Amino acid sequence: MKILGLDSSGLVASVAIVENDELVAEYTTNYKKTHSQTLLPMLDELRRMIELDLQTIDAIAIASGPGSFTGLRIGSATAKGLGLALDKPLVEVPTLEGMAWNLYGSDRIVCPLMDARRNQVYTAAYEFLPDGGGFRLNTVIPQGPVDIHEILEKLAGLNRPVIFLGDGVPVYRGEIDKQQGLQYAFAAPGNNRQRAASVAALGAVYFAKGQTVSAGEHRPEYLRRTQAEQEAERSGARREGTGG
Amino acid sequence: MKILGLDSSGLVASVAIVENDELVAEYTTNYKKTHSQTLLPMLDELRRMIELDLQTIDAIAIASGPGSFTGLRIGSATAKGLGLALDKPLVEVPTLEGMAWNLYGSDRIVCPLMDARRNQVYTAAYEFLPDGGGFRLNTVIPQGPVDIHEILEKLAGLNRPVIFLGDGVPVYRGEIDKQQGLQYAFAAPGNNRQRAASVAALGAVYFAKGQTVSAGEHRPEYLRRTQAEQEAERSGARREGTGG
Repeated sequence: MKILGLDSSGLVASVAIVENDELVAEYTTNYKKTHSQTLLPMLDELRRMIELDLQTIDAIAIASGPGSFTGLRIGSATAKGLGLALDKPLVEVPTLEGMAWNLYGSDRIVCPLMDARRNQVYTAAYEFLPDGGGFRLNTVIPQGPVDIHEILEKLAGLNRPVIFLGDGVPVYRGEIDKQQGLQYAFAAPGNNRQRAASVAALGAVYFAKGQTVSAGEHRPEYLRRTQAEQEAERSGARREGTGG
Repeated sequence: MKILGLDSSGLVASVAIVENDELVAEYTTNYKKTHSQTLLPMLDELRRMIELDLQTIDAIAIASGPGSFTGLRIGSATAKGLGLALDKPLVEVPTLEGMAWNLYGSDRIVCPLMDARRNQVYTAAYEFLPDGGGFRLNTVIPQGPVDIHEILEKLAGLNRPVIFLGDGVPVYRGEIDKQQGLQYAFAAPGNNRQRAASVAALGAVYFAKGQTVSAGEHRPEYLRRTQAEQEAERSGARREGTGG
């Protein structure tokens, strides 16, 4: 089974090929260029380097959100385009699950923190449970946009060691250090951001279970509404309020 | 601090830039091409993609062995050439330590297995000990070329859960499964082979401690002698034997 993984949900752009429990190739950049300048050129470079015939892949695993609107749109558009052109299914891998998969096999609570500004984070908490010689990801705290203090309180209440990763770590490091009753550590540079290798590897698990969508069906999961949607709703609420 | 990491000790070719606890870029291939066709072109590609001025790096971290003779030679020659041209120091990161660093923060015994043919593996066993908010690598079983059964016996004797990684895993999976009294798991595809991100990240730790060598001083650590050296010794021994 050969899976192409893509992640452009955050600042990182990452592409990878995983085939039968082996990483064939991965290319990741965490740089100021926009994903439209990086994601597809990186895939094209990688394809040439490993002489990959894209027709031989079984599915395209895409980090499906949450994340930055623009990043998710570029990732989804790329995955949909490839899926349509190659006639291959897509596998939607929730961004936070993909990130947690970087720390596959950890005995700690794994908590990815994606900065969503103004003390908000996209987050969730997972644990790895033994499953047929390997591990499966179990959700301890479901994903959502929450206040950083709320998730830290919840984690402290679990009374288990936690390992944090994600671009929220440098932003909220001070809050984490201040949280009472929390035993914690941080992931290393090679695993503390989004990785397409993890999206592809977890995507392979979901693909094996038949959890695919067509290119046409796929939609990114923003979790939060766009600024425009929020403004439209506020404006609607105002109209209702004044019009009643 | 900006560190360039290189690893071509095994089948994998990998280049990465780590800057202040963040992975800026990583490019890894595990493909049949020789490292002379991959390593430098990959670095050049990555350099262009992230607009990297190589003069801005502080050091070149190189997976210094053990590993395949040819792979180590190409990696070392590349690192030495870059170090000389850029006038930057090299940081020698033992291959097995770099691999263990993929699983940074694990609560298990980490055991990288590099296949050295005929039931031999290059291996070692490590644990991560808390160290000033992070972790440091502690050697539990020192590195060496040993028989797979010998290391498995030793690991079972430690009576602690083990996580394996490396190209020795698929080769000796059957032996691992057969070992009495061993509680074990395997790393995921994204972390189960050499990664330059880990070489760079651990290299940054060594660099901060001043553990550098000059381009001229650096030599790869083969652990085993070359076939030619072994033959020369055998032939010498024969001469001694017959000549006495």
